[in-house]
Amino acid sequence: MAVHLQRELDKLKKRILSLGALVEERVHMATRAIETRDIDLATQVIKSDHEIDEMEVEVEEECLKVLALHQPVAIDLRFIAAVIKINNELERIGDQAVNIAQRIINIGQRDPIDFYFDYSIMAEKAEAMLRKSLDSLVTLDLDIAFNVLTLDDEVDEIKDDAYDKIKAAISQRPERVGYLINLFLISRHLERLADHSTNIAEEVIYLIEGEIIRHGNY
Amino acid sequence: MAVHLQRELDKLKKRILSLGALVEERVHMATRAIETRDIDLATQVIKSDHEIDEMEVEVEEECLKVLALHQPVAIDLRFIAAVIKINNELERIGDQAVNIAQRIINIGQRDPIDFYFDYSIMAEKAEAMLRKSLDSLVTLDLDIAFNVLTLDDEVDEIKDDAYDKIKAAISQRPERVGYLINLFLISRHLERLADHSTNIAEEVIYLIEGEIIRHGNY
Repeated sequence: MAVHLQRELDKLKKRILSLGALVEERVHMATRAIETRDIDLATQVIKSDHEIDEMEVEVEEECLKVLALHQPVAIDLRFIAAVIKINNELERIGDQAVNIAQRIINIGQRDPIDFYFDYSIMAEKAEAMLRKSLDSLVTLDLDIAFNVLTLDDEVDEIKDDAYDKIKAAISQRPERVGYLINLFLISRHLERLADHSTNIAEEVIYLIEGEIIRHGNY
Repeated sequence: MAVHLQRELDKLKKRILSLGALVEERVHMATRAIETRDIDLATQVIKSDHEIDEMEVEVEEECLKVLALHQPVAIDLRFIAAVIKINNELERIGDQAVNIAQRIINIGQRDPIDFYFDYSIMAEKAEAMLRKSLDSLVTLDLDIAFNVLTLDDEVDEIKDDAYDKIKAAISQRPERVGYLINLFLISRHLERLADHSTNIAEEVIYLIEGEIIRHGNY
């Protein structure tokens, strides 16, 4: 029975990591679309989101099945509870990739403008956070998980910078407020994306430490 | 044993509803602060958020304990999985109330402006959605849960209207872009708040129907 449960838990871990890999791919497509303003790429992100949604539903069903059939306790129970929540976070990260793609399409349909905010570093950090949060789940490495939390502060700083610069640009080109608000919203979607990766890392820390640090008590 | 489990499930339901009542109260304080621009009220929302966070942690601990001790199956298992997720949604609704409160404080520190967007109907609908999503959990009434989904579309419409009007206001008063973006972000926080209530209603529907409609397959 215990061996059987272990096999099911390994399978669950593999499945959540496959979902993670798919979500990583979509986020990368979305951030490349920010750089290249590639509308086709953005459209692909939107059209393929249902794959993430379907996989999320499957993983959750699987979690409930393992809970019902094997009635795990202690650390195994905690692991499954973590997978249920990480699964949810991954699906929401997919939604943020879709949101970014929609902004790119919206921006792409408007006249270009002589203002540019470089989102490449913010995007790189947000992608690193997602990758590391998943790495921390594989390795159960506390340092990697904590590194995600540090990166989150850096992402927030860039978001503030984007806000200031785009706000100034709007003051100077009020007739282009539609374009610029869409550009501004990209920073909010990247920030939300980073927040979800932080939630994943916090789940992993919680799993490792068996302590609850979600609400800033660390 | 079954009687004992039933008692634990009833207790869980009571606890999640207490959390729901607390979150409702905070949302109501935040929406009143939008109307009245009451900075003290907004500050209260922010300062008391830790109570919601603490209660969320307790409910989750309780869920895991019931899972471990009673090893529920079928509908009981599904109920606990729903509580784990609804618990999470409620905590995030509390965060949105905090976000709204922060915007009010930010706006309150700036010079007033001769532009006004009436958020009262949007706030009323968002509050109704939260109340109904919790009602649907108590009564397991499918109609009430579906009504939340309809209201969500109405909230989205008002958000679009806010976007258009505030965008136009920014074009006309570009020097007040900081004030106006904060006003615009209130609509996004209300929309996110509504989204979380929708998630709760969908969990309830899922619980009732045992079908997954989360991803728009209804």
